Amino acid sequence: MIQCGIVGGTGYTGVELLRLLAAHPEVEVTQVTSRGEAGRYVAELFPNLRGHYDLVFTPPEEADLAACDVVFFATPNGTAMHQAPALLDAGVKVIDLAADFRIKDVAVWEQWYGMQHACPELLETAVYGLPELKREEIRAAQLVANPGCYPTATILGLMPLLKQGVIDTQRIIADAKSGVSGAGRKAQVGSLFAEMGESFKAYAVPGHRHWPEISQILGEVQGGAVGLDFVPHLLPMIRGIHVTLYGFLTSDCDDLQALFENFYHDAQFVDVLPAGSHPETRSCKGNNFCRIAVHRPRDGDTVIVLSVIDNLVKGAAGQAVQNLNLMFSLPEELGLGAVALQP
Amino acid sequence: MIQCGIVGGTGYTGVELLRLLAAHPEVEVTQVTSRGEAGRYVAELFPNLRGHYDLVFTPPEEADLAACDVVFFATPNGTAMHQAPALLDAGVKVIDLAADFRIKDVAVWEQWYGMQHACPELLETAVYGLPELKREEIRAAQLVANPGCYPTATILGLMPLLKQGVIDTQRIIADAKSGVSGAGRKAQVGSLFAEMGESFKAYAVPGHRHWPEISQILGEVQGGAVGLDFVPHLLPMIRGIHVTLYGFLTSDCDDLQALFENFYHDAQFVDVLPAGSHPETRSCKGNNFCRIAVHRPRDGDTVIVLSVIDNLVKGAAGQAVQNLNLMFSLPEELGLGAVALQP
Amino acid sequence: MIQCGIVGGTGYTGVELLRLLAAHPEVEVTQVTSRGEAGRYVAELFPNLRGHYDLVFTPPEEADLAACDVVFFATPNGTAMHQAPALLDAGVKVIDLAADFRIKDVAVWEQWYGMQHACPELLETAVYGLPELKREEIRAAQLVANPGCYPTATILGLMPLLKQGVIDTQRIIADAKSGVSGAGRKAQVGSLFAEMGESFKAYAVPGHRHWPEISQILGEVQGGAVGLDFVPHLLPMIRGIHVTLYGFLTSDCDDLQALFENFYHDAQFVDVLPAGSHPETRSCKGNNFCRIAVHRPRDGDTVIVLSVIDNLVKGAAGQAVQNLNLMFSLPEELGLGAVALQP
Amino acid sequence: MIQCGIVGGTGYTGVELLRLLAAHPEVEVTQVTSRGEAGRYVAELFPNLRGHYDLVFTPPEEADLAACDVVFFATPNGTAMHQAPALLDAGVKVIDLAADFRIKDVAVWEQWYGMQHACPELLETAVYGLPELKREEIRAAQLVANPGCYPTATILGLMPLLKQGVIDTQRIIADAKSGVSGAGRKAQVGSLFAEMGESFKAYAVPGHRHWPEISQILGEVQGGAVGLDFVPHLLPMIRGIHVTLYGFLTSDCDDLQALFENFYHDAQFVDVLPAGSHPETRSCKGNNFCRIAVHRPRDGDTVIVLSVIDNLVKGAAGQAVQNLNLMFSLPEELGLGAVALQP
Repeated sequence: MIQCGIVGGTGYTGVELLRLLAAHPEVEVTQVTSRGEAGRYVAELFPNLRGHYDLVFTPPEEADLAACDVVFFATPNGTAMHQAPALLDAGVKVIDLAADFRIKDVAVWEQWYGMQHACPELLETAVYGLPELKREEIRAAQLVANPGCYPTATILGLMPLLKQGVIDTQRIIADAKSGVSGAGRKAQVGSLFAEMGESFKAYAVPGHRHWPEISQILGEVQGGAVGLDFVPHLLPMIRGIHVTLYGFLTSDCDDLQALFENFYHDAQFVDVLPAGSHPETRSCKGNNFCRIAVHRPRDGDTVIVLSVIDNLVKGAAGQAVQNLNLMFSLPEELGLGAVALQP
Repeated sequence: MIQCGIVGGTGYTGVELLRLLAAHPEVEVTQVTSRGEAGRYVAELFPNLRGHYDLVFTPPEEADLAACDVVFFATPNGTAMHQAPALLDAGVKVIDLAADFRIKDVAVWEQWYGMQHACPELLETAVYGLPELKREEIRAAQLVANPGCYPTATILGLMPLLKQGVIDTQRIIADAKSGVSGAGRKAQVGSLFAEMGESFKAYAVPGHRHWPEISQILGEVQGGAVGLDFVPHLLPMIRGIHVTLYGFLTSDCDDLQALFENFYHDAQFVDVLPAGSHPETRSCKGNNFCRIAVHRPRDGDTVIVLSVIDNLVKGAAGQAVQNLNLMFSLPEELGLGAVALQP
Repeated sequence: MIQCGIVGGTGYTGVELLRLLAAHPEVEVTQVTSRGEAGRYVAELFPNLRGHYDLVFTPPEEADLAACDVVFFATPNGTAMHQAPALLDAGVKVIDLAADFRIKDVAVWEQWYGMQHACPELLETAVYGLPELKREEIRAAQLVANPGCYPTATILGLMPLLKQGVIDTQRIIADAKSGVSGAGRKAQVGSLFAEMGESFKAYAVPGHRHWPEISQILGEVQGGAVGLDFVPHLLPMIRGIHVTLYGFLTSDCDDLQALFENFYHDAQFVDVLPAGSHPETRSCKGNNFCRIAVHRPRDGDTVIVLSVIDNLVKGAAGQAVQNLNLMFSLPEELGLGAVALQP
Repeated sequence: MIQCGIVGGTGYTGVELLRLLAAHPEVEVTQVTSRGEAGRYVAELFPNLRGHYDLVFTPPEEADLAACDVVFFATPNGTAMHQAPALLDAGVKVIDLAADFRIKDVAVWEQWYGMQHACPELLETAVYGLPELKREEIRAAQLVANPGCYPTATILGLMPLLKQGVIDTQRIIADAKSGVSGAGRKAQVGSLFAEMGESFKAYAVPGHRHWPEISQILGEVQGGAVGLDFVPHLLPMIRGIHVTLYGFLTSDCDDLQALFENFYHDAQFVDVLPAGSHPETRSCKGNNFCRIAVHRPRDGDTVIVLSVIDNLVKGAAGQAVQNLNLMFSLPEELGLGAVALQP
């Protein structure tokens, strides 16, 4: 059994990791840290885990993470960068679900995250954990930067078009909508039920931290800078991201549907829907799929891609488990076979 | 008192008209027709109206609509076109909340609505009831085609840019999201709570009936055909539309904020928010406002407009009352002063 | 115009007062205080108020509340008791929407609210502001204790039965369900959308502060102590309270329906539904009604009363305005005529 | 592998059976029937099943159900009673998720279900499929009547009290609240999102079909008729039932907590929470647990039990799988190990 530690297990990605790992036949969670909840049973804070875990939250300073085979950081940004170097030195694999190792350019990172990076030397070796883009590098990685939720849905929806070189790379639009669990388990007025229910809004239109992340990866895919507008919105629901992507065709593409189907032929967690489909976010609720549909209305020059995921699974904890499977040479889908909850 | 009849009062636009007209000091609703609910008290079907109306649904064939000063059609598409001619001949003003008189080109209408038009000769004289675009024509109109909900939010968000001539008119994107009341009070599996709750999806990406409507009006505003992509989505909430509009600047515009504020300076129901704002749909819940914010991220060449309305008010019944006020030379805002419900 | 001040205008009862008073023809809100938001426009914090108020939040120490005719306290418990005495001395009428003056027995109050009362001498003269119970005393009152939301719905549902003396007064059950706005506009994890959505639970079963309040008033109505079990629950919705009341008939009552209809014949804001009805909370959304239905299943000895209100209106701000109307000899319903929002 | 057929696979219990059985290592679903959807891929109707099933809906007349080892009826009431006899004769085990075999007294059944029973002779041998009550009989059964959702949560909450004989058996109150998936996947106005969202109501207070079912089983547990009042309510959420139970203690019970813990010591799917708890419905979302808390406020003579389940799992499809496991001598929890989704 792979011994696994989770740093910061009191947020939504933490509890989701615990939910998924309970079904994983090769992983045993041996430590979950929390400062605020230290000493409390994990299943007391999260009653859905009753009967599945007998663990108690460990204070960070008492945890023996170096004894683990792998450590997940389900922490706020700026935490993993302080602890990862020592763990890596001790031979522990690290998967950071926050943003500390996603951006290669330290100056860009420091500008968007408003702090100094603690270990910029690791940015080079950290692997961006999107298996559909970097499967082989992840297999060899010691340190994986688990992608953001919006970037996962957006990049998966655009990769085939960019790799094929059929759209104007300077005018890409990503209109993204997320359930409120994306804002985390933090006490803040803006995330109250009475504030978020029965309403909808855009936010961070002038700039969102996932914009440089998406831009970097798309630029890498494309082989040059892309022009991207990214507008996130908040949905009055808990889980799910829907990204509506707009590109303008520059060279003709006879069969966009075939392009996507071929591109993702071997991707176990990317499901290209039949032509004419409109994926619902709930079709991924609780599982690790990204479901995608591609449209070209009125046979015009606009291609519209609809890409949905569960932000807590393929957008966070599920992708992290997928990365773990790759890093430990396990079948990529191990422990990730749950059917989405519908209705 | 203006004597008013409502044809088809059992849907959501019908009950919303009744709600709004209960607060209107110059209008008396004298007849509400329904075939299915004939003989039943209006307030029995809609308990929110208890204490406000003593009316009974009249079967259509027994209604004496010609005795009214004005008749609203809150009916499915294809109904008003059969009854409007006789009412107009009898000197009754008609406001159609459905789509029968919105499209000028009868061939386009027949293609999108799948039926033959019963009175194409009225299409010329019908006035598209968007007061912010056609206030004077509405004042003089006998027959008003009340705009669709998506078109209202979309056109109000784009008008200043098109009138000013600052964006590429061939690459306009309208990414629209609507609450489920827009689908009407019809028994259909797709609109069930258990189907729509905790989920989100696009629909009708290949083509939606509001696309030709928006295209026609934007073309009229612009003075030539526009290239528009329009993608509607369904939100897990009851009321509210949020349209996220993307345009590409072609000539420089020093101050988009001032452009919008000046353009809507005299529009009582269009509220341009301060620079940097993100309107929430709930800020219009139950009232007749359209609230708009304009952004230009990173001072690039993309302009992003956020436009929100209550689909049942400014997107339907409220705009119909605003049109009635204009048609009867009343203050435009009469009976429409309610504050939105928050939270 | 009645000059009105609001202390603590940043919570949900505060913004609801502002919404309702905007429609009141005889009241002008001249001051709204807030420490945290001092200097900010009220309509900036609550965009639904844009176009209705030009007010800025005043820091408490700069407010001249003594210049008002009436002051509402929309504050946490334990605030009004410190400021009310001076205002009353200055001849200002006071309506406290919190709990400071609801309990007559200071020891009971101090036990349940966990603090020392600052002006126990006012408890005697404060009038419990339930117009259907104490209309005449409210007319003469200087200090009104606006009832809690659960107590309002519960007491209105039980009063006819207790006054008539037909149920076992020692075995009354109130199973109450509330929308989450009842928990207030406070940043707390338990009220997050992601915590409250798609879930339901009871809370405070061992004891809730509204239990002594309801018990006191029912005891007063009954003329002796009653035995009440009260279990509150949290609904995944914003507004609305539904109380399901169970009583056991001790003497026969031929016509419970007539009992309720007669009892509330002159109550403008209590609507007894026809026999066999099941009131929906939304039938009161945004308005001041309490709608009630009474059942006696299988003609047995259990009477079941269903009582619904909007917790922010009849359960808080609307009832406060109703009390103001009485205190200033205005028509009881003035400014409270809005139709509930449906759907 | 156990060959399994599902009759009527297009409703919510049908798709939930398919979801759960996809994770069951010993069951293979070989046939799913539907008249309306015949010929369509199961995973086309329910996209959450994509990648898990390659099945097509079979028209009922073409299905070879006699070839199955077990057949589930996920049909409307009154269907299974016509097909079960032939299947049983063919040696197929039958689990009916509808109500055809739940009531022992055919006259009572016919009164409440409004039709004539097609095979009253089977009522005697059918076993009520509540494993916590009838584990051994289920093991030996050919025909299982899977319990209703409300009865499951209610009976599990009351059994320890009745078996111990500590409450007044003539004054039991069950105040029940259910998510809307309980109303099924039927096109009806009352179940629309715009009707059910942001609202709450009781229904069927004069009489609900689950009342005779609960009464029969409680009477059986108790050894004599019980007096039960049962009031169901509709919650604005998809999944979950919360029953709040009220009983009046007649003999003293020192330790209600211990009573419940001991009673359910060996029940794998009944989780008695620590004293003072308030179970949330979401703690069972998607899994087969019933979680229960017991309270005695103010040490009075009222005992309050809070009992939650997922109505589609422990209240329907999950319990059916639990019954299948028992009927085929498999471990009771096989295939039912999923952790509930939180948030």
